[in-house]
Amino acid sequence: MTWPDRVTIVEVGPRDGFQVELEFIPTELKIDVVDAVARAGVSKIETSSFVSPRAVPQMADATEVFASIHRRPGTRYTALVPNLKGVELALGAGADGVRLVVTTTETYNRKNVGMTVDESFEVCRQILRRVEGESIAVEAVIALAFGCPFEGPVSEDRVAEMAHRFTDMGIDELSIADSVGLGNPTMISSTMTRLLSELPGIAFSMHLHDTRGLGLVNAVAAMRVGIDTFDASIGGLGGCPVFPNGAGNIATEDLANLCEEMGIDTGVDIAAIQAVSTRMQDFLDRKLPSRVLLAGTPGQLYAKIRKEAE
Amino acid sequence: MTWPDRVTIVEVGPRDGFQVELEFIPTELKIDVVDAVARAGVSKIETSSFVSPRAVPQMADATEVFASIHRRPGTRYTALVPNLKGVELALGAGADGVRLVVTTTETYNRKNVGMTVDESFEVCRQILRRVEGESIAVEAVIALAFGCPFEGPVSEDRVAEMAHRFTDMGIDELSIADSVGLGNPTMISSTMTRLLSELPGIAFSMHLHDTRGLGLVNAVAAMRVGIDTFDASIGGLGGCPVFPNGAGNIATEDLANLCEEMGIDTGVDIAAIQAVSTRMQDFLDRKLPSRVLLAGTPGQLYAKIRKEAE
Repeated sequence: MTWPDRVTIVEVGPRDGFQVELEFIPTELKIDVVDAVARAGVSKIETSSFVSPRAVPQMADATEVFASIHRRPGTRYTALVPNLKGVELALGAGADGVRLVVTTTETYNRKNVGMTVDESFEVCRQILRRVEGESIAVEAVIALAFGCPFEGPVSEDRVAEMAHRFTDMGIDELSIADSVGLGNPTMISSTMTRLLSELPGIAFSMHLHDTRGLGLVNAVAAMRVGIDTFDASIGGLGGCPVFPNGAGNIATEDLANLCEEMGIDTGVDIAAIQAVSTRMQDFLDRKLPSRVLLAGTPGQLYAKIRKEAE
Repeated sequence: MTWPDRVTIVEVGPRDGFQVELEFIPTELKIDVVDAVARAGVSKIETSSFVSPRAVPQMADATEVFASIHRRPGTRYTALVPNLKGVELALGAGADGVRLVVTTTETYNRKNVGMTVDESFEVCRQILRRVEGESIAVEAVIALAFGCPFEGPVSEDRVAEMAHRFTDMGIDELSIADSVGLGNPTMISSTMTRLLSELPGIAFSMHLHDTRGLGLVNAVAAMRVGIDTFDASIGGLGGCPVFPNGAGNIATEDLANLCEEMGIDTGVDIAAIQAVSTRMQDFLDRKLPSRVLLAGTPGQLYAKIRKEAE
């Protein structure tokens, strides 16, 4: 067992975090947040989603956001898309990649996108055909990979079967999502070990919600078996639009601190993330769940001690 | 590597949690909480502390609490004591055990108990002499084992040296405390592996604060190297009387849920803990940090789904 040398953090706050906020976040602020996160060293940012503005009013300015961000070379700006129309908009906006989501259970998939699981896979196939020859990355997300708030437990076989279905279509980036925080380290370890073994060459990442306080525990369990890419959101923003008790994502600053403490490089400037989280906290006028946002990192505390001693 | 078959949770809310609350918690409520936690299956409860009522007014009713709890056979009710006077009171109150605390750094030890580290060790020696022949367990706590908010990093050698000093005096139960949450999984794994190897036969436990969101991550790291006993507090109550930004303990229900999810027995009825945490949350009139208190366990969610399906 070895830890990854480097962990890639994918910032999903501007999409997964913002989408559940009822108050409209001004487009300018969204752009500032994306730019600040990129400047902080985050190399993949889920920047917005191209979904129905009636269904998700918060994401209605996706095209504007993509048009006005200051793109940093080497940073990948992606969008979540539910259908072909979304892909057209993402292509038009110049997104570097799109994320397609299919849920493990019929109930949730229908609530989320109004389609059966088979229909969602068919949409993915159409999207893959549409983007052939375009310079846009395609990543698939297996949502509710560790449990469903409507149907209950989800089997590892189900997740593996969906993973094969995606890779058989030609997708080579897969995000395994514990969308409402029902996973535990034993499950994560078992599922991810199996997927890595059955599907070599596929770039796996994980999306872990902290609903039951196990977000970072599950991230460590995944790192231990070889996963090195994780979604996270500034301040721990987020929730679940379909299930009301779902809590937010792993906080970007908390994951970056965990990695820094373990000697694993993320390339992320934690203080810069804290600054942008603080700005969102002030705008939303409520405490965000990140612990590092509240307490600072050990490194910050020790630097202060050294400075005071001088 | 194997996980422990069973994890023992030591409830410290009635001491470490209550002591930082400014509003006096009525003695009756304290007794109810201790009794409810014992009925929930927690077999070790840090019930109160025998400290100066001027220094810690919240603990002024320690003797009354010990006199009125309904003792369950097999449950150990302990008290934190800073000095010989505290031990006399603990013996008089019929405590089953006492916890003595020495901090790794001079600055914090002085702020905490007004003594040098050597003076604290001398007090421990006096206490051990005093309780010879008495049927009371003595446990020592090495506080700030993973970093100090005043002096900075703490070396593993320092912790090992203190552990040997305690065991050389005849103490065979040692709690290694990350009192303000400066530890990380790498440190925990290294330090606990060393202590377990250098001091076989000593019963080690850990006390892990969640200041930077790593409480459960660190608990898992400790379990992985063989530690099976952890302090926790209902709802995640607690903080640090000396350092203002210190956050609470691991929440009892969160740790019990983690273990249950991993198939590790704790003997703790999570629903009963949630009920007592809810009672404290109502009394304190603020949200406690426990995530399971807010969201429930996967088992509870799935039971509800099954019931609705019937």
